[in-house]
Amino acid sequence: MSSSLTPEAVIAALRTVVPPGPLALHEPHFSGNEWAYVKECLDTGWVSSVGKFVDRFEHDLAETTGARHAVAVVNGTAALHICLKLAGVEPGDEVLMPALTFVATANAVSYCGAVPHFVDVDEATLGMAAPALRDYLENNADLRAGACFNRTTGRRIRALLPMHTFGHPSDLDALADVAARFRLELIEDAAESLGSYYKGRHTGNVGRLSALSFNGNKIITTGGGGAILTNDADLAKLAKHITTTAKLPHRWLFEHDMVAYNYRLPNINAALGCAQLEQLPGFLDSKRQLFQRYRAAFSDIAGAHIVEEPAACRSNYWLQTLLLDEASADRRDDILAATNDAGLMTRPAWTPMHRLTPYANCPRAELPVAESLERRIVNIPSSAGLT
Amino acid sequence: MSSSLTPEAVIAALRTVVPPGPLALHEPHFSGNEWAYVKECLDTGWVSSVGKFVDRFEHDLAETTGARHAVAVVNGTAALHICLKLAGVEPGDEVLMPALTFVATANAVSYCGAVPHFVDVDEATLGMAAPALRDYLENNADLRAGACFNRTTGRRIRALLPMHTFGHPSDLDALADVAARFRLELIEDAAESLGSYYKGRHTGNVGRLSALSFNGNKIITTGGGGAILTNDADLAKLAKHITTTAKLPHRWLFEHDMVAYNYRLPNINAALGCAQLEQLPGFLDSKRQLFQRYRAAFSDIAGAHIVEEPAACRSNYWLQTLLLDEASADRRDDILAATNDAGLMTRPAWTPMHRLTPYANCPRAELPVAESLERRIVNIPSSAGLT
Repeated sequence: MSSSLTPEAVIAALRTVVPPGPLALHEPHFSGNEWAYVKECLDTGWVSSVGKFVDRFEHDLAETTGARHAVAVVNGTAALHICLKLAGVEPGDEVLMPALTFVATANAVSYCGAVPHFVDVDEATLGMAAPALRDYLENNADLRAGACFNRTTGRRIRALLPMHTFGHPSDLDALADVAARFRLELIEDAAESLGSYYKGRHTGNVGRLSALSFNGNKIITTGGGGAILTNDADLAKLAKHITTTAKLPHRWLFEHDMVAYNYRLPNINAALGCAQLEQLPGFLDSKRQLFQRYRAAFSDIAGAHIVEEPAACRSNYWLQTLLLDEASADRRDDILAATNDAGLMTRPAWTPMHRLTPYANCPRAELPVAESLERRIVNIPSSAGLT
Repeated sequence: MSSSLTPEAVIAALRTVVPPGPLALHEPHFSGNEWAYVKECLDTGWVSSVGKFVDRFEHDLAETTGARHAVAVVNGTAALHICLKLAGVEPGDEVLMPALTFVATANAVSYCGAVPHFVDVDEATLGMAAPALRDYLENNADLRAGACFNRTTGRRIRALLPMHTFGHPSDLDALADVAARFRLELIEDAAESLGSYYKGRHTGNVGRLSALSFNGNKIITTGGGGAILTNDADLAKLAKHITTTAKLPHRWLFEHDMVAYNYRLPNINAALGCAQLEQLPGFLDSKRQLFQRYRAAFSDIAGAHIVEEPAACRSNYWLQTLLLDEASADRRDDILAATNDAGLMTRPAWTPMHRLTPYANCPRAELPVAESLERRIVNIPSSAGLT
């Protein structure tokens, strides 16, 4: 017999899985070589831009993700900015992205002087919906001289930027087909999906360039950090150059050959990253177990379910999600209030981009699924240390 | 009897001051609470954006500099970018800056869509020359409706951005007069001048906003980091908001009210900064002693001298400078080659901005002093640990 979706039932179900006491939504877990590596930085004086951990972290990230090249940067937003720039996004271009994402996805487009263009998502993946996108572009975009233009604004649509929501991979094959059909650069916002696989391939390998994040709430953390992934050696070289002030190699001269950025990851943060990455397999196991326990705990509650990885995908289960049925969406705020009052940190999805003041006037498709999911998503405590 | 300026004489003079063995130009020095504070971050799990060291570092920076507010950010370039943005620099504006500076000064202006406009420097301060600037603006700028315009390009000149070279304060009173006369916002690039005083006031207090850097080569380091200083409470609040994605406070909603940045300093880097800042008085003493020893060691060598702090200033002596006479400028490269070959890292000044490809076409004044200094500056090993 199933119980109904009351705040009390949600709290009781959560408490069958997690230990007593207050719980954050996502806490980092330091149980490996963090101390040893960070202390090595301090003992050798190499905390900053020079030091072996940056190289090692980049090497280890490439190995983990299967991407040929990884370039470590100061955070995921910086990684996205450079991915867009290197993919050729120019001022006045438009970039297609899901309406349901963290604001960094849209901000990175703004930094390029380009305009975010919001499209709908899919309930199965929580990410960009390829079939809706194809229909939308057929009706709202024109291909001219091998380039895609927004029929209404006249602006060039340069790129497609799916985001792997809470670690669940978007349907990359279908999105790659749309990108090819409409001559769009495919860039993956893989900020949340380190350790997530789409049809056996690590996310971040289908796009020409992809962005990872190691913010404090991510599956592994460097304090703050990010990385650019690419399989293109020239782009990787350029990514390193443009994120390190574009200084030309010379014994002593300071020559810089382009307007560039100071986006390098400090060595002390990379040291943390190396230690965290060693523990990723364990974190992935913990998070999968946590998903299974939550799924069981909520199986008897009518009107909501725990979100499961999409078909043919293996998710990192970064953030666990209780998804309310449409008919129960009006209970979201009561559940959020009661769980947070009880010391169990929960949160809704991000406010969709088209409802934020700075992006309210950007072009957009119809967004029924994004609107619906935003009313129904409740993220629940997800730290790897919980199992 | 003085000896002549040969590479051998320079090496011999350096070796009377510094210990045997290879020496970097500037190494960080960790002899305080660095490990204790960093370990506290790891033990508590607070390495990222939340944590007490960011607040403490900002408090300690304000206390050290005498500025009312300090906002910690990810690096000095980010600090400059936000200073310019909050001072109202808009796309198409021009910003006056010394031609002799690190490329970040010009890059930060580019990020705003504005154009760097290079002016000359002064041999006594190595920074922006106020008298030359005044003459230049009298002849090349117009005041209209309370705003300053470049007579040639027609663009608005919005701000004046002096940089305190190697820690030596620019002549801030004279520059503030020029800024007032021509209705320019004064912003200080104080990246190199933590611990430097102009007429008894810490640098970074005359400009409406100022930028500090804590890169690995600076007088104190956070691995990578920077800060915005201001005495204006509203600007400080806005600086914090715009560097932390402009998220509005709410128990769970993700609302952001402007296009903003992810420039926050991670807590683990701030922890390092707190420990380093405790040691700043000792670093300043060491660097002043090092200056005195170098000055004595080079007093017998004709054709060059060690640069001393400007009148009415107390410099942090961040980077020590051997300044060749104009007649000896042709020996610079031999001295650089021989000292670096001998394991004593030295370097010239930065290539002046107007000679870098990305900035070659920017507007500029005549730059005879910047050109001359660039041919004559040799920075020599300057770590606080050397005395």
